[in-house]
Amino acid sequence: MSSTIGKIFSVTTFGESHGPCIGAIVDGCPAQLKLNEADIQHQLNRRRPGKSDLSSARNEADIVKIVSGVEDGLTLGSPIALIIENKDIRPADYASISTIPRPSHADFTYKAKYGILAKSGGGRASARETVCRVAGGAVAEKFLHDLHRVEIVAWVNSIGNTTLSDVDVNAVNRIQVDASEVKCPDPSLSKKMANMIKEVAESGDSIGGTIMCVCRNIPAGWGEPVFEKMEAMLAAAMLSIPACKGFEVGSGFEGSRMRGSEHNDMFVMKGNRLGTISNRSGGIQGGLTNGEPVVFRLAFKPVATIRLPQNTVNYDGVPVSLKMEGRHDPCVLPRAVPVVEAMAAIVLADMARRSGR
Amino acid sequence: MSSTIGKIFSVTTFGESHGPCIGAIVDGCPAQLKLNEADIQHQLNRRRPGKSDLSSARNEADIVKIVSGVEDGLTLGSPIALIIENKDIRPADYASISTIPRPSHADFTYKAKYGILAKSGGGRASARETVCRVAGGAVAEKFLHDLHRVEIVAWVNSIGNTTLSDVDVNAVNRIQVDASEVKCPDPSLSKKMANMIKEVAESGDSIGGTIMCVCRNIPAGWGEPVFEKMEAMLAAAMLSIPACKGFEVGSGFEGSRMRGSEHNDMFVMKGNRLGTISNRSGGIQGGLTNGEPVVFRLAFKPVATIRLPQNTVNYDGVPVSLKMEGRHDPCVLPRAVPVVEAMAAIVLADMARRSGR
Amino acid sequence: MSSTIGKIFSVTTFGESHGPCIGAIVDGCPAQLKLNEADIQHQLNRRRPGKSDLSSARNEADIVKIVSGVEDGLTLGSPIALIIENKDIRPADYASISTIPRPSHADFTYKAKYGILAKSGGGRASARETVCRVAGGAVAEKFLHDLHRVEIVAWVNSIGNTTLSDVDVNAVNRIQVDASEVKCPDPSLSKKMANMIKEVAESGDSIGGTIMCVCRNIPAGWGEPVFEKMEAMLAAAMLSIPACKGFEVGSGFEGSRMRGSEHNDMFVMKGNRLGTISNRSGGIQGGLTNGEPVVFRLAFKPVATIRLPQNTVNYDGVPVSLKMEGRHDPCVLPRAVPVVEAMAAIVLADMARRSGR
Amino acid sequence: MSSTIGKIFSVTTFGESHGPCIGAIVDGCPAQLKLNEADIQHQLNRRRPGKSDLSSARNEADIVKIVSGVEDGLTLGSPIALIIENKDIRPADYASISTIPRPSHADFTYKAKYGILAKSGGGRASARETVCRVAGGAVAEKFLHDLHRVEIVAWVNSIGNTTLSDVDVNAVNRIQVDASEVKCPDPSLSKKMANMIKEVAESGDSIGGTIMCVCRNIPAGWGEPVFEKMEAMLAAAMLSIPACKGFEVGSGFEGSRMRGSEHNDMFVMKGNRLGTISNRSGGIQGGLTNGEPVVFRLAFKPVATIRLPQNTVNYDGVPVSLKMEGRHDPCVLPRAVPVVEAMAAIVLADMARRSGR
Repeated sequence: MSSTIGKIFSVTTFGESHGPCIGAIVDGCPAQLKLNEADIQHQLNRRRPGKSDLSSARNEADIVKIVSGVEDGLTLGSPIALIIENKDIRPADYASISTIPRPSHADFTYKAKYGILAKSGGGRASARETVCRVAGGAVAEKFLHDLHRVEIVAWVNSIGNTTLSDVDVNAVNRIQVDASEVKCPDPSLSKKMANMIKEVAESGDSIGGTIMCVCRNIPAGWGEPVFEKMEAMLAAAMLSIPACKGFEVGSGFEGSRMRGSEHNDMFVMKGNRLGTISNRSGGIQGGLTNGEPVVFRLAFKPVATIRLPQNTVNYDGVPVSLKMEGRHDPCVLPRAVPVVEAMAAIVLADMARRSGR
Repeated sequence: MSSTIGKIFSVTTFGESHGPCIGAIVDGCPAQLKLNEADIQHQLNRRRPGKSDLSSARNEADIVKIVSGVEDGLTLGSPIALIIENKDIRPADYASISTIPRPSHADFTYKAKYGILAKSGGGRASARETVCRVAGGAVAEKFLHDLHRVEIVAWVNSIGNTTLSDVDVNAVNRIQVDASEVKCPDPSLSKKMANMIKEVAESGDSIGGTIMCVCRNIPAGWGEPVFEKMEAMLAAAMLSIPACKGFEVGSGFEGSRMRGSEHNDMFVMKGNRLGTISNRSGGIQGGLTNGEPVVFRLAFKPVATIRLPQNTVNYDGVPVSLKMEGRHDPCVLPRAVPVVEAMAAIVLADMARRSGR
Repeated sequence: MSSTIGKIFSVTTFGESHGPCIGAIVDGCPAQLKLNEADIQHQLNRRRPGKSDLSSARNEADIVKIVSGVEDGLTLGSPIALIIENKDIRPADYASISTIPRPSHADFTYKAKYGILAKSGGGRASARETVCRVAGGAVAEKFLHDLHRVEIVAWVNSIGNTTLSDVDVNAVNRIQVDASEVKCPDPSLSKKMANMIKEVAESGDSIGGTIMCVCRNIPAGWGEPVFEKMEAMLAAAMLSIPACKGFEVGSGFEGSRMRGSEHNDMFVMKGNRLGTISNRSGGIQGGLTNGEPVVFRLAFKPVATIRLPQNTVNYDGVPVSLKMEGRHDPCVLPRAVPVVEAMAAIVLADMARRSGR
Repeated sequence: MSSTIGKIFSVTTFGESHGPCIGAIVDGCPAQLKLNEADIQHQLNRRRPGKSDLSSARNEADIVKIVSGVEDGLTLGSPIALIIENKDIRPADYASISTIPRPSHADFTYKAKYGILAKSGGGRASARETVCRVAGGAVAEKFLHDLHRVEIVAWVNSIGNTTLSDVDVNAVNRIQVDASEVKCPDPSLSKKMANMIKEVAESGDSIGGTIMCVCRNIPAGWGEPVFEKMEAMLAAAMLSIPACKGFEVGSGFEGSRMRGSEHNDMFVMKGNRLGTISNRSGGIQGGLTNGEPVVFRLAFKPVATIRLPQNTVNYDGVPVSLKMEGRHDPCVLPRAVPVVEAMAAIVLADMARRSGR
């Protein structure tokens, strides 16, 4: 399995959702950075299920411990190991899946590749693996913020057909996002989205949506040309998040319908640097950042685990009606917001380090 | 610069568009594969500008030579070096860009990162670099086809707002695609698209569009979980293509508006294997192929180089009206089709090798 | 820091010697391999300080826990996380080193690179880091043994000037090695070596030596030509062990004094395969294994920490007489034996996986 | 095949000795470095067979062409492609080896791995592949020298039993080395070595030896702890050179016979930096450079191709007497000197880049 991301600043994750613990090893982080568990815990808390009816009942405390790489609140330059105990383990919930591959889950493909499945309902394909990403990403974010003042903000942009029409990517912040039960910075739309999720949950179904993310204060010149362009590395990081099905940067698919004369970003003086008037490039040109905010958008499919019965077949090809019980989110979007931020931070941190920062 | 892609099956490219030659080194290709220059030339020819008015006047013969790794028509297991001479070099065309960063090009960001620019109008950011991808990809495709019967077909799915509504991804083939001047397998739509490109070209403008790609006959279990999921590696490969701004696999952004009960792909017996009735997963679950066709779609922005005057500033911030002359495609889509196929082949070949194939 | 080794079968280690725990993440191990903690504990026990006077008084229980990647005694294909608690922590021992860089230690160079030092007397440069290598290597060894019957045996070949003249590399085994207090399979020489170590220890000094290692039953064709030759990857792995200063494979430095007619290994039929009469190649030709035992030898410098006073300078350049207290081995060799086996196993496992095994 | 070395500053080589050309792609070199073909040609010339009787009669002009990555004498930051035509191709010389695996060559192991052999007498295992290393290494050296004043000097330290007893590693230079027909800086010993090589050549035999290398002016702190220690990366690079069988850094195997009190390098003030009085560490502590010269020594086995008849077997196991004709060096050492320097430069350049230089 490919459990490491990053060339110089790297994150390696491990752990099944029902083993004793899960964790992440962050290597290549600069020394002498201030870092403590609260810096990481904050993002883990943002990923945890809320008190509301919007998410699974699983009670994950998700307390992170830094077990290496930090002494007296300063990073040593050595690998930072982060461990999170699994507290609320109920393997019994997943008994049925040993004979029936869950539709649109990884059961069938893992079985095809490995010939064996974790009993724990997903193993490494479980959404629980994203806890480790958030933990590792929080370290990346601390580095980016403290040394380069980089700001990363993600938010829910749509749930089903309910879409946020306009956001000021230069101003949107996490306070606005966190004020919303669904992590959408528009209060009225947020309410509408929350209602839709509740309604979907009650019907035993699930729903998808989109997340947007902006990364501000990135100097011009981060990234690599040709195969490891900034947008390429971001796309890989995002598509590696469970349930993510699409990525677009800047104008994205909308831009494919435009003409060059409409689409091109004209240069203009911004203070003492060259900037662009519009930002359809999404802050990246030729794979390198141009100093404008990096902006991208992600599609998330509806959660595959639903209570509604599904007409599928078991591993022997015999038709069955599958009814899933257990704790499942009807909509992954609100909790995916810090995961998106984490993956963005990891990519940016690696690119920063590769640029000698 | 990051000029190598792939962990076991790798492609390294080199060359500026106005140097003596460009090329690709393919390493990790299995030995004893039948391979000759015609196998590669065929795809290079598909990428070349056509006789029509749809593409740039630059006359690139693009004749590939295999200079290592093959003897008597068989691969040796050693690196396969592919060299293509640059025949039609006119550096004078690019004189103006030394003082003015072209809008939505890489001039500004390369200057920020490297402090120096190739005189050749793009250097490594030039679309000419994609010749090397096509050459390397043709080797990957030969391996995939000969050893695993994998078929890869890409086509133009939209130009501006003109969109192909429906394609049979199980049947679409390159003969249909190549019958079209714009590489769109629907003959009537193809005509409409060609007209639009001509009209845009005449107005001195450019236009974007989308490309779709299907990869068939991939066994279940290719890919890697967690960070190097099949869709993540495909996304990175595609977003590394110049002008590509978006990637979606299977249901993609459309899927983000659906409910789980609509979206899930139910299993069914297909001959002696388990398949799925629908394919909103795009042939991938949990980062691993499931035996169904891998299907994805890409957004390409309009070509940044246009003849229409652009109100921008020079490197000193002084407003200028930039008028670009020279040879430029009004629409990159038709010629990007074999580039997309090449990048898909490279990713699949690496994943095959990593699975021990 | 570069805390990951291996391209497909990889081991990532973490942990300072005085933090709560240290550990290793093994990724890329085949699924469905039988593996339990005892398989790993056995090698950790061989690395632990013995009851004799030959090694440091530090009482490291070094109990390994598998916290992911294994269920019901079978590997899942997912990352295998191994955690070892640090039980016997006495940071006070290392107070003096904050002002004086210990001669031939990493204090000075770590300070130069990171600007900060772990209080724990070595941090990542501590010999304690090798516990993680042994743990990870034990997993590699289990894979190599169970699937390929590969046998790896290392032993102490010399202590100071006391050198084992002859060993049958086809027959030497761990039972013979473990029968010796110093891990030398020759009982009488073993006694002599043990006495020398005791004598050196009593004088407050330390002593170096050499270790040999043989890897048997490796099929012909493992390894990679050019830059990642089998001997190159073994050399890197071995030179990455603290205190290792030299590596030679097959005839090594002795071979540099020979003529081709003496040195060449003539082929001969061995059962139904081609073998060689002599093995001055050390089982490797052109970077690839040839089916003969892979044999190599390593130089270890004397332990840098000694009780004898040392005339050096502090960080300000002021001359000081440094006297080191605390728990230190007078000779690292006996305990390095399982570390060498572990590193060999990790390299071989990665090469096996890269060959599709 | 593993034809790429280096993580940020990387060199990829290609080419069989009897194809149209061979070459190297250097990626990750800083932009704006002065570089022309003469910088590279100089080292290639040092590797070429001389006019004397000491080396093979093959007449390799080895003229390098820079075909990308450099404009107007300055690097662009893009991949620098170096191509060297093969001029003197005589494949007929190698007819016999299709049925008989040459003893201590890679014929047998390549056949085992790939099932096919280059007709060209070695393919990628040929010493000719080292031309590409020298070319790539010359770029690395230019970067290290121009930006960091690093000096790298290698020399022949022994031929058979004739050994140079003492060299001043702080002063030895290439002028002294190149004054010698055998690249040994001691004039009288050089003569003795040359005579021995001639005598060995006349008898149809070959002979091995050792090479030493010193790298000066490296700042403290280059390298990586744990698995990619400076000595580990150097060892891998050196052991990847054909015929290299051993590597030792600093005191090496000699150090294994010493006591800690003799071996430790005491610190002392050197100008305004901390240095060490002795340098048994070879300029590296804990995997990181300490500011002292990096010094290492390599064992090279005698050339495997000899004119003397050899009693071996063919691929079918039938005993044969093999007599090799053709052009072969009786001793690889003199021509290996620039190869060693090149590999050292590549490792140092990558480590410099990874340190953000």
